[in-house]
Amino acid sequence: MGLFSKDIKSMDDLFAHSLRDIYYAEKQITKALPKMREKADDAQLKQAFEKHLEETENHIRNLEEVFRLMDLQPGGVDCPAIDGIIKEANDVAGEVEDKQVLDAALIAAAQAVEHYEITRYGTLITWANELDCDDWAEVLKRNLADEKAADEKLTQLAENRVNVAAIG
Amino acid sequence: MGLFSKDIKSMDDLFAHSLRDIYYAEKQITKALPKMREKADDAQLKQAFEKHLEETENHIRNLEEVFRLMDLQPGGVDCPAIDGIIKEANDVAGEVEDKQVLDAALIAAAQAVEHYEITRYGTLITWANELDCDDWAEVLKRNLADEKAADEKLTQLAENRVNVAAIG
Repeated sequence: MGLFSKDIKSMDDLFAHSLRDIYYAEKQITKALPKMREKADDAQLKQAFEKHLEETENHIRNLEEVFRLMDLQPGGVDCPAIDGIIKEANDVAGEVEDKQVLDAALIAAAQAVEHYEITRYGTLITWANELDCDDWAEVLKRNLADEKAADEKLTQLAENRVNVAAIG
Repeated sequence: MGLFSKDIKSMDDLFAHSLRDIYYAEKQITKALPKMREKADDAQLKQAFEKHLEETENHIRNLEEVFRLMDLQPGGVDCPAIDGIIKEANDVAGEVEDKQVLDAALIAAAQAVEHYEITRYGTLITWANELDCDDWAEVLKRNLADEKAADEKLTQLAENRVNVAAIG
């Protein structure tokens, strides 16, 4: 969208913009997760990243379903937020020497990603319901449920395994 | 920290790094909130941004207390995540024509900021407890409680006032 144009004129436009934002974000996440899996040392953490990659690919298909319901071509817009969150994850990971501490840092980074998605899906679902488009909301709720479950799983892994090993 | 050095060798180092990250983030948020308050049209939304600015200034003082408890000089590290989240907020706000739709966009942007802080404080509190530093955790819990309350307040404003006006 143009830097000096005002392309968002209605809540429908704002919804579509935000849908494109999270679509771009999910695609970036499919690129980031394999790298995080590779860096992880703990086997269960590797497995959690692998599982969430499969879920993320499914989220992209779900978003494409919402685009279809809206009669729009699927497409992304630049999302400096997810780019920044992923850049920070890479920066911090690059500074950690110890394998167990790196696992703890990877979990923190992944939870920042999850929380970004949780807030975006929460907003989109509210807007969809208010726009009387419950069918869009129903699809988006599936993605939100996965993100919340992934965040909870990461908390459990951190508290029960990874942080214990990192503190040593 | 150096691009090719591995400065994080322990969970204490990772904790200190993440504390500097959120300290930088809170400082950036004190610069962003007055601009968001100025752009907002709804009186209650303006008031919510004003109140959260005061809370954010208090969060910075609380973080400085944690630095003192750790015998560290307060200081920030670059936080590309919050920079990206704030950049995205500005980009989207710049594209919205309608005042009521802009209010809805501002709330969504502010909630992305809150969720970033919620995930970071959640992680820091867990680590502090695991490092047997409950005094650090107690201070950080005050900030987390404010962020969660601010997020909840924004949801209420969106659902009860702002989105209703924006959909028209």
